[in-house]
Amino acid sequence: MTGNWGRWGADDQSGALHLVTPEVTRRAVATVREGRTLSLAQPLGPGSPSPGHRAGPARYMTRDAGDYALGARSPGGFRFAEDVVQFPTHSGTHVDALSHVWSGDHLYNEHPASSTRSTRGAQRCGAEHLFPVTTRGILVDLVAATGAPLSPRTAVTHADLERGIAEAGVTPEPGDAVLIRTGWWESDGAAGDHFSDEPGIDEAAAQWLADRDVALVGADNYAVEQQTDVPGFPAHLVLLHRYGVPLIENLELAPLAGALAAAGRSAFLFVFAPVPLVGSTAAPVTPVAVL
Amino acid sequence: MTGNWGRWGADDQSGALHLVTPEVTRRAVATVREGRTLSLAQPLGPGSPSPGHRAGPARYMTRDAGDYALGARSPGGFRFAEDVVQFPTHSGTHVDALSHVWSGDHLYNEHPASSTRSTRGAQRCGAEHLFPVTTRGILVDLVAATGAPLSPRTAVTHADLERGIAEAGVTPEPGDAVLIRTGWWESDGAAGDHFSDEPGIDEAAAQWLADRDVALVGADNYAVEQQTDVPGFPAHLVLLHRYGVPLIENLELAPLAGALAAAGRSAFLFVFAPVPLVGSTAAPVTPVAVL
Amino acid sequence: MTGNWGRWGADDQSGALHLVTPEVTRRAVATVREGRTLSLAQPLGPGSPSPGHRAGPARYMTRDAGDYALGARSPGGFRFAEDVVQFPTHSGTHVDALSHVWSGDHLYNEHPASSTRSTRGAQRCGAEHLFPVTTRGILVDLVAATGAPLSPRTAVTHADLERGIAEAGVTPEPGDAVLIRTGWWESDGAAGDHFSDEPGIDEAAAQWLADRDVALVGADNYAVEQQTDVPGFPAHLVLLHRYGVPLIENLELAPLAGALAAAGRSAFLFVFAPVPLVGSTAAPVTPVAVL
Amino acid sequence: MTGNWGRWGADDQSGALHLVTPEVTRRAVATVREGRTLSLAQPLGPGSPSPGHRAGPARYMTRDAGDYALGARSPGGFRFAEDVVQFPTHSGTHVDALSHVWSGDHLYNEHPASSTRSTRGAQRCGAEHLFPVTTRGILVDLVAATGAPLSPRTAVTHADLERGIAEAGVTPEPGDAVLIRTGWWESDGAAGDHFSDEPGIDEAAAQWLADRDVALVGADNYAVEQQTDVPGFPAHLVLLHRYGVPLIENLELAPLAGALAAAGRSAFLFVFAPVPLVGSTAAPVTPVAVL
Repeated sequence: MTGNWGRWGADDQSGALHLVTPEVTRRAVATVREGRTLSLAQPLGPGSPSPGHRAGPARYMTRDAGDYALGARSPGGFRFAEDVVQFPTHSGTHVDALSHVWSGDHLYNEHPASSTRSTRGAQRCGAEHLFPVTTRGILVDLVAATGAPLSPRTAVTHADLERGIAEAGVTPEPGDAVLIRTGWWESDGAAGDHFSDEPGIDEAAAQWLADRDVALVGADNYAVEQQTDVPGFPAHLVLLHRYGVPLIENLELAPLAGALAAAGRSAFLFVFAPVPLVGSTAAPVTPVAVL
Repeated sequence: MTGNWGRWGADDQSGALHLVTPEVTRRAVATVREGRTLSLAQPLGPGSPSPGHRAGPARYMTRDAGDYALGARSPGGFRFAEDVVQFPTHSGTHVDALSHVWSGDHLYNEHPASSTRSTRGAQRCGAEHLFPVTTRGILVDLVAATGAPLSPRTAVTHADLERGIAEAGVTPEPGDAVLIRTGWWESDGAAGDHFSDEPGIDEAAAQWLADRDVALVGADNYAVEQQTDVPGFPAHLVLLHRYGVPLIENLELAPLAGALAAAGRSAFLFVFAPVPLVGSTAAPVTPVAVL
Repeated sequence: MTGNWGRWGADDQSGALHLVTPEVTRRAVATVREGRTLSLAQPLGPGSPSPGHRAGPARYMTRDAGDYALGARSPGGFRFAEDVVQFPTHSGTHVDALSHVWSGDHLYNEHPASSTRSTRGAQRCGAEHLFPVTTRGILVDLVAATGAPLSPRTAVTHADLERGIAEAGVTPEPGDAVLIRTGWWESDGAAGDHFSDEPGIDEAAAQWLADRDVALVGADNYAVEQQTDVPGFPAHLVLLHRYGVPLIENLELAPLAGALAAAGRSAFLFVFAPVPLVGSTAAPVTPVAVL
Repeated sequence: MTGNWGRWGADDQSGALHLVTPEVTRRAVATVREGRTLSLAQPLGPGSPSPGHRAGPARYMTRDAGDYALGARSPGGFRFAEDVVQFPTHSGTHVDALSHVWSGDHLYNEHPASSTRSTRGAQRCGAEHLFPVTTRGILVDLVAATGAPLSPRTAVTHADLERGIAEAGVTPEPGDAVLIRTGWWESDGAAGDHFSDEPGIDEAAAQWLADRDVALVGADNYAVEQQTDVPGFPAHLVLLHRYGVPLIENLELAPLAGALAAAGRSAFLFVFAPVPLVGSTAAPVTPVAVL
């Protein structure tokens, strides 16, 4: 067995989300104190940042107020506006499906990579298999320690994670969602280009997280993992491909960090409910923290 | 004052979501027993149903396994797939933003309708203002009573709602989310066309819900409200326009109904976290019920 | 050598268009008598017919008159409207590029089929290689003989072509464009579905045309060739793949037929100037006949 | 009467294209000597330049060679590739429809501007009304004089046009297409941004062209007219709005200039056959010169 392949049956396409058992959910629910809900998502629209090799998000109005100003009828006084949106699934705050990355000829759980084709998209491990979970979230706040965002290309090692989690005063348990605040989106160090040179976890840190049986890993940058001169995304391969741990990218973590700091805690109820995009390699998601 | 206009300040663009106070959230959290999370969303993809006047959802692969079969390089063994999606925001399971409908020249809360234009979309009351909430959900199961979906064009009156809620054994309170199961998507009565003749609430039922200060209303059909020969959407105007109550449409409610029936209850923790689409008139959402 | 592979050099991606020599063009120009220009293209827009497996054309306004009605500024009195279009390249009146079809692992002229991938499109034989030509057009009017459109699934054989051309009183010469009127778009025989059961040339007729060294073949249906129960498009393979003869589909030929009949001739100046879509497998084109 | 309003009837939506009479076409055809056809269009694809406020062109493969490498069936050995394209109609080499610009509440020929709305696009003067014409083209080569592209923001005045045409040795006559080479796309003066500071005709030069009853005006820049600090596009208003003269933008004129210089002439057969995009404000076109 490689990582979690086979662990949840030969047909499984949802991976580590299975680690969120009812007991895990109940434990997470028990952490709620204030009853405050925070969004961890960036706004998504035509102005959203997008890496150069991907077209940016677009929105087209198919009915708007101008139609009425020009004389469109309003039966019973009723007026409406509608629109169409278009965006790369890996833009904005999104979760990578288990079809997103692989090595060799197989996806997570030995599903054939050949199932991802032009016409039908990802016929295995598409984003529609990322079912919603309610679990405990843990924030590893790497900005709090120094008060500043991590420098470009900084590696977040497993030692960093251990230290951060020790400071947080919690121990990751199976089914938890671990969110890593690097400060990347808050920084302007990259001169406005948030798609290269990002700091993030390295391969060993990814393995450390996988070994803890976490259900989800997220970060406030576009790839969770450190960008270096070596091509490839080794932490993606560990987490998504070998262990089936979905990655949540481009999270908005500063407000959560502030709220947790004010409340003097690091764990919270975390609800993950992505859009079930059939055959897509990622999906937009608005993760929420309930404190 | 018309409905809730002005109630949350002259600038408010989020409406009845404000009714979900921390206390409401805490009460909702307290309903969790089993720790089971259910998705209330339909899958969204190229095969998804769409009304005739709207183009259907599309997904385009911008990188797939075929690229590697044809010789694309795999630095460090790394391979990936990506895609772009496109869909009308009012397709699949979605929430109507407060910019979606209006009467006269003003949106909800007296925002000028003229703020919704071709280039910039809805500059007021766009979907990005629909912040996530965690609240109590109540299922009004109109299928359970007779064991069959409502017939086409059936009006769900306020008396029906009162009866259904009495059967549910709960009383709607401010901030609740009320979900109405009509059985429409489960039926094949409309011969495959789920976009005309749907049963749903009438105008007075909408007013009854607004009077109870609910935060959200949803249903398992594409418009929540009854379709008749009279053009216009009066329940939309009451809820979205006058009271600022977002409408959640095309919900998947049969599994929830089954789970609640098995558990002998009607209320549950409801988490609503739509994609914050800037300037859109609706947004995809995967609402979840936690039992 | 298979067909025309290698005939115009190992790098050639334009095929039989090379047969239109300056002499051919001069001869074609000499056919002009009246000075009348006719479009042979169908309108292309949201209402255009499209086969079921392809999304239909769409147009989105990104600026329109409604913006001004709602108060957009008009510097110097200047107002404008803009739009974005989206369509499958094989919809409307279009020409198939030499990357459109193949057999085995090679495109026309032994270019590797592997050059057509998701990210970059057709890196060989894309539509940008279909340079404009001015040549002689010959209409083979199969409707004129009987006064009615061909029946569904009728094979147009090489004997039919020979007879039609004999009636036309012209002999196809190298570099000519041969347009075949089947009456398919004029008929309602297919009950509104113009994408199955169409009459058209069979494989031997395709070979007959290739043997005559024509530069272009077009027809008033969506695939030029006959549709039968046998899957595959053998005439496409002969003309596009083996001989590099671009196919022009969904032509509007009735007005041309009328004008030629009135003038008592069958040949005309034909101008072919497709949109040079980089990496596409087809391109929209508005072919013109000048009489 | 304002300009050409009413000149071709109250319903006219095609404007100065009517000036291309059969006699004009015959005269144009008579200019052909060599039988050489040149494309005047830029390639259009994902890499094409696009102004910042417009999304760039995109192409999505819906079937490609990768599908076959991964095992897609090939009935009768037949394989194919397909794609979808998307682009702003005012990108690449295109012609502005008469619905593109206006002043006040009316389009060209007193059509109500209110006919251009979000859902249906330009219901008057859409690009489908720009019928093909075959006419005489005249190149005004402003680069030849100095051997260098015009400087940014240079005004091309009517005196410049008169001089250029005198040098060309031809006199514009009704129905001609006048193409102006500024060298803008050939220059790198704008540091890669070809969408601001362009040199081009001023308002009086536009009037001078309109007074000569030309059918079409084109240039090798994105707006034909000079860009200054004064907002608005006065030459657009003169030509498109008042006189119904379609503008062809982003032409590729250097090869034509070279060929004409070599042949010692300035006039040529010009064929204009845009894609008949229904309801669009512009359309892609591959104009050709036949020498």
